[in-house]
Amino acid sequence: MTTRCGANPIEFIAKKRDGGRLGATEIQDFVTGFMEGRVTDYQMSAWLMAALLVGLDDAETVALTQAMLHSGKVLRFSSLRLPKVDKHSTGGVGDKISICLAPLVAACGVAVPMIAGRGLGHTGGTLDKLEAIPGYDTRLEARRFQAVVRDVGVSIIGQTAELAPADRRIYALRDVTGTVESIPLIVASILSKKLAAGLDGLVLDVKVGRGAFMKDLVAARLLARTLVRVGRAAGRRVVALLTDMSVPTGLTIGNALETREAIEVLGGGGPPDTVELTLALGAEMLIIAGVDARRGDARRRLEQARRSGAGLERFARMVAAHGGDPRVVEDPARLPRAPERVPVPAPVSGTVAAIDPRELALVALALGAGRTRADQAIDPRVGIELSARRGTRVTRGEPLAWLHVARRDQANPHLSRVSAAFAVARRVADVSPLVIGRVTR
Amino acid sequence: MTTRCGANPIEFIAKKRDGGRLGATEIQDFVTGFMEGRVTDYQMSAWLMAALLVGLDDAETVALTQAMLHSGKVLRFSSLRLPKVDKHSTGGVGDKISICLAPLVAACGVAVPMIAGRGLGHTGGTLDKLEAIPGYDTRLEARRFQAVVRDVGVSIIGQTAELAPADRRIYALRDVTGTVESIPLIVASILSKKLAAGLDGLVLDVKVGRGAFMKDLVAARLLARTLVRVGRAAGRRVVALLTDMSVPTGLTIGNALETREAIEVLGGGGPPDTVELTLALGAEMLIIAGVDARRGDARRRLEQARRSGAGLERFARMVAAHGGDPRVVEDPARLPRAPERVPVPAPVSGTVAAIDPRELALVALALGAGRTRADQAIDPRVGIELSARRGTRVTRGEPLAWLHVARRDQANPHLSRVSAAFAVARRVADVSPLVIGRVTR
Repeated sequence: MTTRCGANPIEFIAKKRDGGRLGATEIQDFVTGFMEGRVTDYQMSAWLMAALLVGLDDAETVALTQAMLHSGKVLRFSSLRLPKVDKHSTGGVGDKISICLAPLVAACGVAVPMIAGRGLGHTGGTLDKLEAIPGYDTRLEARRFQAVVRDVGVSIIGQTAELAPADRRIYALRDVTGTVESIPLIVASILSKKLAAGLDGLVLDVKVGRGAFMKDLVAARLLARTLVRVGRAAGRRVVALLTDMSVPTGLTIGNALETREAIEVLGGGGPPDTVELTLALGAEMLIIAGVDARRGDARRRLEQARRSGAGLERFARMVAAHGGDPRVVEDPARLPRAPERVPVPAPVSGTVAAIDPRELALVALALGAGRTRADQAIDPRVGIELSARRGTRVTRGEPLAWLHVARRDQANPHLSRVSAAFAVARRVADVSPLVIGRVTR
Repeated sequence: MTTRCGANPIEFIAKKRDGGRLGATEIQDFVTGFMEGRVTDYQMSAWLMAALLVGLDDAETVALTQAMLHSGKVLRFSSLRLPKVDKHSTGGVGDKISICLAPLVAACGVAVPMIAGRGLGHTGGTLDKLEAIPGYDTRLEARRFQAVVRDVGVSIIGQTAELAPADRRIYALRDVTGTVESIPLIVASILSKKLAAGLDGLVLDVKVGRGAFMKDLVAARLLARTLVRVGRAAGRRVVALLTDMSVPTGLTIGNALETREAIEVLGGGGPPDTVELTLALGAEMLIIAGVDARRGDARRRLEQARRSGAGLERFARMVAAHGGDPRVVEDPARLPRAPERVPVPAPVSGTVAAIDPRELALVALALGAGRTRADQAIDPRVGIELSARRGTRVTRGEPLAWLHVARRDQANPHLSRVSAAFAVARRVADVSPLVIGRVTR
């Protein structure tokens, strides 16, 4: 409404502070003012804290999403007839799903223009995993990204300076001002970045459990519902799956190790949970895209693309289009490998009842697989390879896992911690299913 | 506790955000970090908003006060045997009390090292009023201030860069981030600044009503109680009076006009409410200082200092010590005077039932008596002189007030607004007493 400078940001902050409802135009003005320097970093931070503590309703969250989305370029694929659908995960341990899922879905006739993220803290990032492939460039500019999507049907890049720059700047502030943990702010950040790629639809993988951002189901369901409602209000088809993150996904944690596992899944192999998650999310993407009407049909189509090698072929073409070495597909030994593998023996015999994903992630982080500051370098080779899953019977002295390390002595400080992350018991209690729920509105 | 940099400010912000209680050491570290540049402006702003919305308890407010107080020099008057007591008002319209009160109390044997403020928005500031005296320098450095207090018993200066610099920097942020309206933050700001002058005791004038920062009694009482509790916890004797600000104090609004009225009070004259407020607050100061045990005795002592000219003599010596012209005491015509006085006639005959202090303050502001931005210049000559108080009978056409203006045409746009600020009725309803309450714990 008002376009006065100066007093306006203060009134805007005070309105939210006092429980008021902000209009779409006001929110747009505030975000624009921030990008133009009329609203300062400290004003934005004060507002973010007020928004976190007082809350934003759906209409405000939609307006914030749109304002952040339109702070940069919004891609259009005018010559592309295919439906454009992406997937976003809220982050877990061993979550390499995007790498196998995106090419597989592309092989089924859906364009997947994916804007992915880097790992920070205990969760890994798709970009770091892809960069384990020699030569793979995640920093294509928007025009090249569009060309790869058109030609190959799939491209995975990082957020560029052109796409949702307000989200980048606001996220950088949230990260250092204790304002990350707000569902509306999380939703606006995810959606603004994702929708900048010009999507028709989005499937969300909202993870719940010790290895996830959301530790409990109530909070995760709220996040999923808000994502779906706000995404739909922004005119996109959106569905969310609530999935279990009480154990790591698959059998690998660490960048090159995870990429190798994703390639196995594309080739028809891979651990059953990684495969199941890929099929469950892929089926939602095909349904949203209108390729299939029924989940069973969609799953069969995805399985077919996996068994026929069509998914692997898309993956190889995507890698090549990004400057990477497509021979990793046939020869995963071309991925960087740690020179040493150190076993972690089972301290007792029994059945693996639980595996703490957070503990393993923190060990992988300490080995150099992740970063605690955004400017840290990572070692793509290092990580943890699990020999046992939940429910596996193990014998005392047999390896529960292998640490992939640069030097043998690097493993020593972590052996007992990795061992303790595995709960070995007489028997396993009932475990929650991999897909806990489906949120459509 | 922890002295790690980096993660620490974020954890500190998140702790308050999540309803946690902050320890004194943590608060001290955060404020020190802010002054040393390890805590950024945007982190401080996010924390201020969390503190405003979640609240700070007394212990946290004491710790914040102490941290801000000790961010700079805390004055000691080691050679001075007199008790040191100051007064602080939360700000009103026509509030010139400090100017007559401080010298009067000094004349009764109490040292008054007063750190005063400037006007901003609709309320005036003691410094601006004193600067209406030709030559008066409010910017003495700490050493000179201490010397004047020792020699004269009273000095009134502005906050210097040496005293509570954290308060200055934090206040500047609060002013532009919607974080002014927090009782704990207000209390810490007031007390850190005041206690930096090395006080033994402090009397607070917490104003309530349309012309005050606090519009209702519940909020004002909470502010008064918090000020008293936190001040006492910081080891000072503190009392607060809740006083009525539903009408302007006295008969003048504007800098030179108000200083003239204060001189009248010191000379034994002045409007009855200005005199009463001076005596009520002065009696509290004498009791806190241990000069008198009973209010009646204290008031008699103050009246004696007023009638004997002892207060006026202190005032003249203080003015001279600050480089000002002490002859304004005998000859108020030496104060700057506006060239034009424009009457505002009563529209009807009757009794003045109410005078809106805020409306009159906004007119004085528009005439140039105040500022809306901290860097604006003010005109010491301009303002409003009231001819009628609440309860005065007026006849249609007689002046309700006079506008003191630089040019005659300057008055025209404001005449009807000033007239409308006076409610003239058949009779006056019961009005609240000037001193509404006394808060001692």
